[in-house]
Amino acid sequence: MERSAIFHRPGNNYSFIIEKDTLCIRIRTKKADIQKIELIYGDPYVWENDKWIFQRADISKSATDALFDYWEVKISPPHRRIRYGFELYSNDERVLFTEKGFYEDIIYDSGYYFCFPYLHASEQFNPPEWVKDTVWYQIFPDRFFNGDKLNDPKDVQPWGKVEPSANNFFGGDLKGIEQKLDYLVTLGINGIYLTPIFTAPTNHKYDTIDYFSIDPQFGTKEDLKSLVESCHARGIKVMLDAVFNHCGFYFPPFQDVLEKGSESEFVDWFYPHSLPLQKGERPNYEAFAFVPQMPKLNTQNPHVKKYLLDVAAYWIKEFDIDGWRLDVANEVDHQFWREFRYVVRNEKPDIYILGEVWHDSMPWLYGDQFDAVMNYPFTTNVLQLFASQKMSAMDFMDSMTSVVQSYPNNVMDVTFNLVGSHDTSRILTECQDDVRRVKLIYLLMYTSIGSPCMYYGDELGMTGGQDPGCRACMEWEEGKQNTDLLAHVTKCISLRKQHPLLANDGQFQFMNWIDTNLVVYRKYVDDRNIFVLINPTNTTQSYQVPFEIKNNSLKNLWTDEEIVCEPFPQIQLEPYDFKIVEFHTV
Amino acid sequence: MERSAIFHRPGNNYSFIIEKDTLCIRIRTKKADIQKIELIYGDPYVWENDKWIFQRADISKSATDALFDYWEVKISPPHRRIRYGFELYSNDERVLFTEKGFYEDIIYDSGYYFCFPYLHASEQFNPPEWVKDTVWYQIFPDRFFNGDKLNDPKDVQPWGKVEPSANNFFGGDLKGIEQKLDYLVTLGINGIYLTPIFTAPTNHKYDTIDYFSIDPQFGTKEDLKSLVESCHARGIKVMLDAVFNHCGFYFPPFQDVLEKGSESEFVDWFYPHSLPLQKGERPNYEAFAFVPQMPKLNTQNPHVKKYLLDVAAYWIKEFDIDGWRLDVANEVDHQFWREFRYVVRNEKPDIYILGEVWHDSMPWLYGDQFDAVMNYPFTTNVLQLFASQKMSAMDFMDSMTSVVQSYPNNVMDVTFNLVGSHDTSRILTECQDDVRRVKLIYLLMYTSIGSPCMYYGDELGMTGGQDPGCRACMEWEEGKQNTDLLAHVTKCISLRKQHPLLANDGQFQFMNWIDTNLVVYRKYVDDRNIFVLINPTNTTQSYQVPFEIKNNSLKNLWTDEEIVCEPFPQIQLEPYDFKIVEFHTV
Repeated sequence: MERSAIFHRPGNNYSFIIEKDTLCIRIRTKKADIQKIELIYGDPYVWENDKWIFQRADISKSATDALFDYWEVKISPPHRRIRYGFELYSNDERVLFTEKGFYEDIIYDSGYYFCFPYLHASEQFNPPEWVKDTVWYQIFPDRFFNGDKLNDPKDVQPWGKVEPSANNFFGGDLKGIEQKLDYLVTLGINGIYLTPIFTAPTNHKYDTIDYFSIDPQFGTKEDLKSLVESCHARGIKVMLDAVFNHCGFYFPPFQDVLEKGSESEFVDWFYPHSLPLQKGERPNYEAFAFVPQMPKLNTQNPHVKKYLLDVAAYWIKEFDIDGWRLDVANEVDHQFWREFRYVVRNEKPDIYILGEVWHDSMPWLYGDQFDAVMNYPFTTNVLQLFASQKMSAMDFMDSMTSVVQSYPNNVMDVTFNLVGSHDTSRILTECQDDVRRVKLIYLLMYTSIGSPCMYYGDELGMTGGQDPGCRACMEWEEGKQNTDLLAHVTKCISLRKQHPLLANDGQFQFMNWIDTNLVVYRKYVDDRNIFVLINPTNTTQSYQVPFEIKNNSLKNLWTDEEIVCEPFPQIQLEPYDFKIVEFHTV
Repeated sequence: MERSAIFHRPGNNYSFIIEKDTLCIRIRTKKADIQKIELIYGDPYVWENDKWIFQRADISKSATDALFDYWEVKISPPHRRIRYGFELYSNDERVLFTEKGFYEDIIYDSGYYFCFPYLHASEQFNPPEWVKDTVWYQIFPDRFFNGDKLNDPKDVQPWGKVEPSANNFFGGDLKGIEQKLDYLVTLGINGIYLTPIFTAPTNHKYDTIDYFSIDPQFGTKEDLKSLVESCHARGIKVMLDAVFNHCGFYFPPFQDVLEKGSESEFVDWFYPHSLPLQKGERPNYEAFAFVPQMPKLNTQNPHVKKYLLDVAAYWIKEFDIDGWRLDVANEVDHQFWREFRYVVRNEKPDIYILGEVWHDSMPWLYGDQFDAVMNYPFTTNVLQLFASQKMSAMDFMDSMTSVVQSYPNNVMDVTFNLVGSHDTSRILTECQDDVRRVKLIYLLMYTSIGSPCMYYGDELGMTGGQDPGCRACMEWEEGKQNTDLLAHVTKCISLRKQHPLLANDGQFQFMNWIDTNLVVYRKYVDDRNIFVLINPTNTTQSYQVPFEIKNNSLKNLWTDEEIVCEPFPQIQLEPYDFKIVEFHTV
C-alpha cells in the first residue's frame, strides 16, 4: 500500500456539507492501489465503558485520474457532529488511517480520528437555486446590436464592415440587446452576462470612470431598467460585470492623486510606490498587470470598500439585476469579498456571485465568498482535446476528473463553463474552422456539468483570434450565419432542458475506468443512466457499455429512437460522431 | 519518483505570507525520494516574445517525518503577485510539477503554474506581538487561593483537606489570585488564563447564567478591575474564558423556552428537536455533548450573535482584559468567529484569541478567526513519549514534525502548548510520579516552539487523575511542595527569557534526520545554533552533533560552562538527562 499517496484533510473538497444534514466525505489514494475502504464514524461523545462507539459504512470509488483513485461516501450524523477514519484494504494489508496517522489496529478513542465538528446550516455552500438550470450568453455590448443610433459614439464604424480594433466603436447598446431578446429565447438562453456597461473611455469599459452611471454610448438608466424588465418577463436573468480590482485612469479619485500627490485625500485608495504618480511602461503604482490605464484599488481601505459595496448594492436595488461577475477577482482580498457577499445577498437573497479566477479556486468557494468561478480549466482541457488535439480522450477525462475532484460536488454543479470569451480566440478559430469539432464541444458543454455560457456569435460560427479579433460585430445577416451549427447548439440546449439529468440532477462520472479513444461520461440516478459518447478522432470507434442493460432496451436521445440491444451493447461512432443514450441497468 | 505522494496546494500550510512582502512556499514529497527541488517563479504578467519570464530558486529540505520530506523556500515577489511551479529531481528523473500536473519539459506559460494571486497585508496571519514571548499559567479560580473569606459559598470546604469532587467548593477567588501574583512573577509567568468567572452554579462555571456578571463567590467587578491592574503593573496579561458554544441550564433565555415552549421569543436561540423541552439522559435539544445542563446556543441567530459579541466587547472595554480563550470553539460556526475577531480587535487591537480545538485546526487559523489553538496534539505526543512510553524518540519527533508542518510557521510560533489542564489528568500522575520525566517535559515545553502554559500546581508536583481529581486546591504549604521541580521549572522559564532563540526567534527543526534514541532539536539563526538534547530512556545515550563547530567551542547553557570540543562533538546523556548547548557552525 502506498501510504504516502493517501490524502484526506477535513474541509475543502474532502469533507463538505452536501445537503442540510448530510456530509460528503472523500479520500484520495494511489491509482489501483486500494481494493476497498470502510468509513469508521460516530458522534465524538458517544462512549460506553471507556470505549468510543462507532459505526461502519462502505465508501465507493467514485472517480479515477492519471495518478489517483477518489472515494466518496455520504453520512448524516444525527447530532450534526462526527469523528471518522478510514479502514483501507489493499491486496496484502489492512490499515486504519486517522488524523494522527496510520495504525495496524482499530483505536477506540474518538480523539484520534478526523473531525467535522458541527454541520452548521450557514456553512453549506448555497448558490442560488436557479443557477444550475441556467444557460448563459455573454454579450460584449458595443458589438451585439445597435438598437439606438442616437447614442452612437461620434466615430462609430459601419457594423461588421471594419475589423474590430483595440480602439474602434460599433455602436452596440442596451436597446440593441433588448431588441434581440427573442433571438436568445429561441436559442434557449435564460441568463445574459454583459461585460462592463459603466462609463469608461474604451470600447471594453474595463477602465471605469464612474461606477454609478451607464456609459452614454450604451444608453441610459431607463434603458437598463427596460432591458432587465424585458429579460425577467422572458425568464432571463441579467448579470453585470463588476470591475473592482482596479479603476480607470480617469476615475476622479485617481485623477485627484495624480494632481495633488501626497496632499490628495485619495492617496490610500491606491498603491503608489512613490509620489508624484508617473505613467510609463511600468507605472510607479500598482495596476492591473502593468497597465497604467488600470490603477489597482486598495480594497482594504474602508472608504474604498464602502464606495464599492455601495456600487454593488445600488445596481441590485435600483435595477434588480440577478448577478455580479467579478473581474480579476483573485487579486482582491478575501475579506472584501466576504463583505461583498453579505451586502449583495442582503439586497437580493438569490443574487449570483461569479468570480473571474483562472486557476485553482477553492479559497473563494467555501460558501462565504463566491457561488462560482469561470471554469477556465474546463476551457483549457477542451481546447487541448478538440482544438490543438494535444490530448487524448483518456488524458482529457483524467484531467477533467482532477478538476472536478478538486472541488465539492455542489460547487461543480454551478461552475461557469465556457469555451470562449472576450479574452480568448473564438472556438471555431481555435478548431481551425472545423465545425464538426465545435459541435462536439457544445454537446459536451451542454450535457456534462456546471452552468454553461455561450460567447455571443460562437453559436453561429463567428471566427476571430485573440482580442481584438474575437470582439467582432455580431453576425445578424442570415446568409452569413452557420445555421447548421446554430441548429445543433439550439438542440443541445433544448435536450438539456428536456432531460434534467443532462443538466445538474443526479451523479456525474467520466467513464475513464476503461481504456477508450472516446470521451464517455454518464449521468445517473439509481438505475437510470444517460451515457454521452463523443468521438474526438477521425477514425471510427466502438464502445461496449460496461453495465448490463434492463429489458434489452436503449433510447437514443438525440434521434428519439428506441433501440433493441444486447445486455452489454456495443455502440459504434463514426469520426467526430457522438451519441446520447438512455437506459436502465439491471 | 513517487508522483502520487507529491503534494502542494496554494494556501493553508503550503503557501502563506510569512512577512509583509514575503511568501513562504512548501512542498511535501515521499520520504527520501527526491534529491533536489527548484522553484520556478515569476510575475504572472511578465512575458517576452509570447513566453513567460521566470526565475529559479533552490528549495531546501526543512523537515522530515515517518512518510514525507518537507521543503520550504521564501520569496518576495516585487509586485506582490506570483505564479510558481516545482522542478523535482530524483535519481533517475527530472520533472516539472504545476497546478495542471506533471510535465517532462518546462512550460513557458504562467497559466499552467500554481498561483498566489496577491500578497494582501490584511491576509497575513497577525497574532499580537506579545504572545510569542508569553509564558502562561492556567488558574481554576475556586482552587487557587482564597483571598476573601467573605465571599465564600455557604458550603465551602476546608482548603486542601477534602478531595475535590464534581460539586464541592473551596472558596478560591479573584482577590486570592491578586494576592499570589508575586509567586507567579517569581516563577516567570507573564500571562494568566482563568477558567470561567461569570455567574454560574457549578464550581467550574462552564454553565453560565449571566455573561455580564462575576460570580459572587469569585468576587466583584471591582476585584476583577483590581486584579487586571495589578497584573498589568507586573507585565502580566490576563485572559478570560468565553463559553459561547453553550449556556447554562439556568440562563434566563433558556428558562424562558423551558417555560413557554414555542411561545417563547427565545426558541431560535437554541436547537430544540421538539417542544416542550425535556431534560433526560439524551435531552430533546442540542447540547454540549449530551449534557442537559449545557444547551447549545444558536450562534447563527443574529440576536444571539449580538448578545455574545456585546459580552466579548464589554469585558475588554470595561476591564481591559488581554485575551479570550474560546471554549468548544470548533463547534461554533466560522462566521461567528470572524465577526468576533472584528469586534474584539476593534476594542483592543492586540487582543489574543485562543480557540479550544483538540484536532487539526487549520480552518480556524487563516488569520480571519483565531490567533492560536490549544495544542493538544503536542500534549498527546508528550504523553506517549514520556508518560505511557508507547512512543520512541524518533516516533515523537516524526509525529511532532507532522503537526508542525500542518501549519504555517507563524501559526506555530504562537500555538498554545500545554501538557495538562482542568480537562486532563495531572502530568506528574500521568508520569507515574516520576519527577525526572516531568522535568524533561517542561524543558521541552519551554525551549521548543509556541506559547507554553503551566496548569496551576503542576510546577510544584501536584498530582490528580481526570476531572475532578486534577482540580485539587493549590498546594501553598511549602513543606508539601516539590521545590526541586519548582526550581527546575523556574530555571527553564528564566533560560527561555534569557535566550530569545529558545522562545520563538529563529528557525526550529527536529533533528530526526539521523536515527537516535534521544529527542534532539535545534533553534538557529544563520550560523548560531542552540541544540536541545533530551534522553527519555533509562539508559545512557550518546549523540554526535552533525555539524562542524566553529572554534572548537561549545557552551552548556544550563550550567553556563564553556567547553572545548571536537569539530563534531560527541555528547553523552545519562538516563533521563538533558543538555542545552550553544555553538556556531563553520
